[in-house]
Amino acid sequence: MNYFEESLKLHERHAGKMEITSKVKVVTRDDLSLAYTPGVAEPCRKIHENEDDVYKYTSKGNMVAVVTDGTAVLGLGDIGPKAGLPVMEGKSILFKEFAGVNAFPICLDTKVPDEIVTAVKMIAPGFGGINLEDISAPRCFEVEERLKKELDIPVFHDDQHGTAIVVLAGVINALKVVGKDIKDVTVVVNGAGAAGTAISKLLLVCGVSKLIVCDKVGILYDGIEDVDYAKQDLAKITNPDHLKGDLSLALKGADVFIGVSAPGIVSKEMVSSMNKDSILFAMANPTPEIMPDLAKEAGAKVMGTGRSDFPNQVNNVLAFPGIFKGALEVRAKEINEEMKLAAAYAIASMIPDEELNDENVLPNALDKKVSDNVAEAVKKAARETGVARI
Amino acid sequence: MNYFEESLKLHERHAGKMEITSKVKVVTRDDLSLAYTPGVAEPCRKIHENEDDVYKYTSKGNMVAVVTDGTAVLGLGDIGPKAGLPVMEGKSILFKEFAGVNAFPICLDTKVPDEIVTAVKMIAPGFGGINLEDISAPRCFEVEERLKKELDIPVFHDDQHGTAIVVLAGVINALKVVGKDIKDVTVVVNGAGAAGTAISKLLLVCGVSKLIVCDKVGILYDGIEDVDYAKQDLAKITNPDHLKGDLSLALKGADVFIGVSAPGIVSKEMVSSMNKDSILFAMANPTPEIMPDLAKEAGAKVMGTGRSDFPNQVNNVLAFPGIFKGALEVRAKEINEEMKLAAAYAIASMIPDEELNDENVLPNALDKKVSDNVAEAVKKAARETGVARI
Repeated sequence: MNYFEESLKLHERHAGKMEITSKVKVVTRDDLSLAYTPGVAEPCRKIHENEDDVYKYTSKGNMVAVVTDGTAVLGLGDIGPKAGLPVMEGKSILFKEFAGVNAFPICLDTKVPDEIVTAVKMIAPGFGGINLEDISAPRCFEVEERLKKELDIPVFHDDQHGTAIVVLAGVINALKVVGKDIKDVTVVVNGAGAAGTAISKLLLVCGVSKLIVCDKVGILYDGIEDVDYAKQDLAKITNPDHLKGDLSLALKGADVFIGVSAPGIVSKEMVSSMNKDSILFAMANPTPEIMPDLAKEAGAKVMGTGRSDFPNQVNNVLAFPGIFKGALEVRAKEINEEMKLAAAYAIASMIPDEELNDENVLPNALDKKVSDNVAEAVKKAARETGVARI
Repeated sequence: MNYFEESLKLHERHAGKMEITSKVKVVTRDDLSLAYTPGVAEPCRKIHENEDDVYKYTSKGNMVAVVTDGTAVLGLGDIGPKAGLPVMEGKSILFKEFAGVNAFPICLDTKVPDEIVTAVKMIAPGFGGINLEDISAPRCFEVEERLKKELDIPVFHDDQHGTAIVVLAGVINALKVVGKDIKDVTVVVNGAGAAGTAISKLLLVCGVSKLIVCDKVGILYDGIEDVDYAKQDLAKITNPDHLKGDLSLALKGADVFIGVSAPGIVSKEMVSSMNKDSILFAMANPTPEIMPDLAKEAGAKVMGTGRSDFPNQVNNVLAFPGIFKGALEVRAKEINEEMKLAAAYAIASMIPDEELNDENVLPNALDKKVSDNVAEAVKKAARETGVARI
């Protein structure tokens, strides 16, 4: 199938992929009087008296805004808010199809972080959560951090944390397959954008001590100057041995490679230089950092990509629907590190130990049972960390 | 039926009245590849190349934002954006149920006109039209005017123009019933808020020359000082005889009374002082300016209210679904006066001359055929005035 041609046809056939539907019928005069005036005045009054009743009488509690400024859409880059809309609609329907979560695309006509923050804060009253999407780094960090501080509903940049959570799930299971402990392994993350940064931070939370991050300029080290502030900050908390050099140096003796970078930049030689039973998640799209067959030939034990036509696909749809479902169901104030870890372990646990092998470390992206499992784990973690409101 | 109690139950049963649904199934790997990555990149690319393709490949062309700041919700006043949400959801589902138009509530956490304008402009890329709702006067005038100028999609404050259009439709038919010409009658509008102002302006466009507007301070006249700037402007274009005094003075010898003011403020004596075969639309909610039986006893010929339990209900649902449907279908740049007039005449024309009588000047609010008729008239007017893009 030619996905591009067929996708165009699909989008044109329906003029988009989503619609707003009513949960109540409006046929009789009584219907109209209950759904609208005069009856609707009563839920309005109740909410005015007690703001929390907005969760009881409206869709807010199960409504996520999928917010973008269109600056980092797929691999297409800064194509603007209108051109980003098909992705946001796609995301919205995945929320619904995979977890029953209502989600609505908000494509913002601004690229200024301060204005993005202002806009999201202004529209927040109608939403139970904010999913930031395809906002370029380092702006995305500032936007998310400020919104997390200034809003009392969960704010979650999926390109960062969704990816990080699924990668972590894959790493957890891959380490089981090769029999290594996460505290002992050396991990190299290549690409210090939104996803790479979040992956690195989550791995640190998870106990990885030897973590090296590379970017186009090479290995990030404390004191590096020719990168943006976010990468300088990341350099301070990684690379404990103060290595300087390029990706091939970083990979020597490493146990795990995580690529969120560019096609084909990992050679067979680099893989051969890694520790025995190496694990690679090469997620450059559509062509990975190294193709699975080459990596395997060079000695890799477990290999994952972003693609559905190879084993071990890292697909965010394993994470975001269930995470928001769980967070919304307990009216979590935020999505914290514990909830992210719980989500990663819940995804990993979908594959029983006896079924784990080098080609089966992540559940199928289409497995709609995953989201319930993730939601339950996220709810539990939210309650245990005191961020659940109910 | 106790509408308030039953409405609370209805809202709680469903936790709101609307949901987001997918128009495409996501079950197989191919489904996912077409609706989302990698296929979705193609419509994104097309829109990036040609911005107008956003209408072809996304929901924008049939998606209205129902925007409020929660400052003038029903008769409840400034209850805030969260408490306004049940009304906005109600409006959204009426759009869909009556005209197949998708609409989504945007409840803004600000009351500052400049911030409302900024927020709406920022979220505009994903919407085909903006329905402003329950924003208090005179702020609503500034907000609408600026958005109309600064956006290239229709912006329509329904509390103003929706009401004005339906009232005009009623007046057109009522004048037929009593055999008077709109150019000859004296019309008194009581209440110079959002609705009263728009009604007045539309009546002027329609040829009414003797129009008197009253507000709490009495008759508005050119030079009046103790009212806001919007009312001062309205005074300049009405009241050609420079009358000064109260509502009872204004009504002496008048042919038409239009009330968007307060319960019970019109007495039988005032109605008796009007011209023969007087017409009254008394729309204060839930209790009209004068009850229909009293008005009739005092000599009124045609009497309408905002209520569904009396004849001639002025209900905006007769106008807004069809107006947006028509405007969206031709991708109108705006909703201009000609389109509003066309909508009013289309609503009026739903009742054939032979069926017109004093208790039947407006179609039933539940008649879903009205919206198609309105949409066709609006499309025609949009094309004739050059604001249609297709």
